[in-house]
Amino acid sequence: VATTATSFRPAELGAGAAAHTINLSLLVLDQPTTAFAAVTTTNQLVGAPVTVVRAALSAAQPVQGIVINNRVANVCAVDGVASAQALLTAVAGAVDVAPESLLPASTGVIGWRLPVAELAAAAPGLRQALAATTSVDLAEAIMTTDAYPKVRSATLATGHRVLGLAKGAGMIEPHMGTMLAFLLTDAPASRSELQAILAPAVATSFNAITIDGDQSTSDMAILLSSSPRAGGAGKHGRADGLADAVKQVCAELASDLVRNGEGTRHVLRIVASHPAGDAWALAKAIGNSPLVKTAIFGNDPNVGRLAAAVGDYLGSGAGNRAAPTSPPITIQMGEHLLLRDEQMFLNARLERELHTYLEAAACDTSRGFPPHNRTVDIAVRVGETTPTTPDAEVLASDLSYDYVRENADYRS
Amino acid sequence: VATTATSFRPAELGAGAAAHTINLSLLVLDQPTTAFAAVTTTNQLVGAPVTVVRAALSAAQPVQGIVINNRVANVCAVDGVASAQALLTAVAGAVDVAPESLLPASTGVIGWRLPVAELAAAAPGLRQALAATTSVDLAEAIMTTDAYPKVRSATLATGHRVLGLAKGAGMIEPHMGTMLAFLLTDAPASRSELQAILAPAVATSFNAITIDGDQSTSDMAILLSSSPRAGGAGKHGRADGLADAVKQVCAELASDLVRNGEGTRHVLRIVASHPAGDAWALAKAIGNSPLVKTAIFGNDPNVGRLAAAVGDYLGSGAGNRAAPTSPPITIQMGEHLLLRDEQMFLNARLERELHTYLEAAACDTSRGFPPHNRTVDIAVRVGETTPTTPDAEVLASDLSYDYVRENADYRS
Repeated sequence: VATTATSFRPAELGAGAAAHTINLSLLVLDQPTTAFAAVTTTNQLVGAPVTVVRAALSAAQPVQGIVINNRVANVCAVDGVASAQALLTAVAGAVDVAPESLLPASTGVIGWRLPVAELAAAAPGLRQALAATTSVDLAEAIMTTDAYPKVRSATLATGHRVLGLAKGAGMIEPHMGTMLAFLLTDAPASRSELQAILAPAVATSFNAITIDGDQSTSDMAILLSSSPRAGGAGKHGRADGLADAVKQVCAELASDLVRNGEGTRHVLRIVASHPAGDAWALAKAIGNSPLVKTAIFGNDPNVGRLAAAVGDYLGSGAGNRAAPTSPPITIQMGEHLLLRDEQMFLNARLERELHTYLEAAACDTSRGFPPHNRTVDIAVRVGETTPTTPDAEVLASDLSYDYVRENADYRS
Repeated sequence: VATTATSFRPAELGAGAAAHTINLSLLVLDQPTTAFAAVTTTNQLVGAPVTVVRAALSAAQPVQGIVINNRVANVCAVDGVASAQALLTAVAGAVDVAPESLLPASTGVIGWRLPVAELAAAAPGLRQALAATTSVDLAEAIMTTDAYPKVRSATLATGHRVLGLAKGAGMIEPHMGTMLAFLLTDAPASRSELQAILAPAVATSFNAITIDGDQSTSDMAILLSSSPRAGGAGKHGRADGLADAVKQVCAELASDLVRNGEGTRHVLRIVASHPAGDAWALAKAIGNSPLVKTAIFGNDPNVGRLAAAVGDYLGSGAGNRAAPTSPPITIQMGEHLLLRDEQMFLNARLERELHTYLEAAACDTSRGFPPHNRTVDIAVRVGETTPTTPDAEVLASDLSYDYVRENADYRS
């Protein structure tokens, strides 16, 4: 596997983009592989790259690489698919692979046309740097508002490895935020094995995080194996640890995405159980409450807002409102019980303890990697739960001035 | 009708409240009336005042007044209902009305106990000021983070009037945000007539606004007539203009709430039609998108985010995802067509025009009443619409630094 990146300043685009650099990146295998899997956004208006990747997935053609650009997402743009394909052709010519073996991936502003001529002109630059670039360089080249590159890996007992790269910092909400994730492995696997491994790994990682509840049009996770084999799980199939390794890498990258969310100061880890309803939806409703998120940003123990968010969800149509009697509800933050039997237990001492707890979980990622991995742990139980009741676990960011600042003028 | 208010600094509460004043307010009729209607929050965890108002509504006992306090919402608090009733008894004694003829209404922090002893001690102060206070004074006394008092009125052809007061600035999302609204009329009406008038008026006003998508536990709209009559619509029933007047006052107060939302700089007026789905939910999905709201706050013509929000909603379970083919979608801002047939029409000139449009719609309410009534008009159509396709119309705020600032430390 080799990766490379090149960049230029676009002249074709309007005021918003001209001051910025577009990075064109390439991730390429030594040989094409039939073993690849992808999960894409559920947004109804999808970007042209998503359309092309879905077509490649159903055509089952061999894949040798992924061409990635930032700044322009190529969504709802005139001639979007044709532009994506023209770019793939230009890059294929520059690095001498078959154009139909390349997949496109774009992230950036929605509605702008891809500046194909300028990107194509930059493509020969990819060849020069090929093999001289590391995966960290690639992870850096695909960043937009990300504060740091996100690379994770895991090693199987067999000695094979899984390497994952991701970008994403805003417009993050399941299913699939404004994020791209690329996973590579040298473990032998078939196409069907990879898809069976990737889908559940995405469900509990990239689909279990939220920064702003906004879902992107562009996004995808792609898993490639450099060691393809014929379909069906062999004796070294899923049991050989590949599924666990992919799941681990996805979970770590998803955690990186939230901790590096636009303006994130606290990461909320919300564990919910709701046997009569949808624990995942309940957990996300809390993680998307602006009032919960702003209070936590401010280290403000205004935890009554958790009760409001839980009651809001339960009282809504989605929240199983038809239940004949109110189920028992408990809400906890860290070790502190906040609500039971519809009563809260607030007093000045508890509020000071909660403030201290929130302060200790805060971190400043604006200068690069986060200083710690602490989370604000929120546990919500609705109804009678048993030791075997499955929990949903969602990671969410808080809501800060910096989120507003970054998004009030993302383009300039 | 007379109103009055008094205030004190609470000693009972913890660090968060001690520095603040609690206002205790009273709205009282000359005589009890059997003609009253109420709409309350759908949040599953409701405040004690909501419980008491609902009980009064179903008991159909005569009502003579409403006792309102800010700062402490009396939600999920120990002895909530008993505290609310103790306060009503104290106020009833001070102004010489029957305790069971008073309704409670509270707004403020969730989870704190109502400081009943202190409130009861302040109650005699209500009597002194009674009849010396105007409705504007009352609207001011019930404010929390509101920037200005909200009072609206309408006059019927019969000469009767409808007067409405409201508070609310955050935790605003249908159905019923953190808002209290009190409407009074001298037009003759029965209990059943009033309820039939209030419910649809609330549906298209207070339930058609969103500031942050967060729904409160406490909230209610109450309509009282000082001229009760026996049930059933008489010849001067709903046709006499009372319904229209109530609808108008509710719509104006709802607009005031959004324009005075915490940190609001732009009011979004989202008109949606979606014959095969839920136009109201579509409009609210746009009004609750943090990325749409932050871009508009920044006068940033990053209108691709509108496409992402529409596609997000349509691609979600709620958004009628099962549709066999993609319906045609159009998105417009002001007079500008932004998207049709899944293509956007962005160029540098259009972006400049959108920036100018957004700038002209911005207003600064931080120094009191807003300087104008302009809105950012967003029109979304999904699917084939006819001239008779009903439109949903939702008002929403943008998302600013000031929203985060106010909510990151609301209590201090």
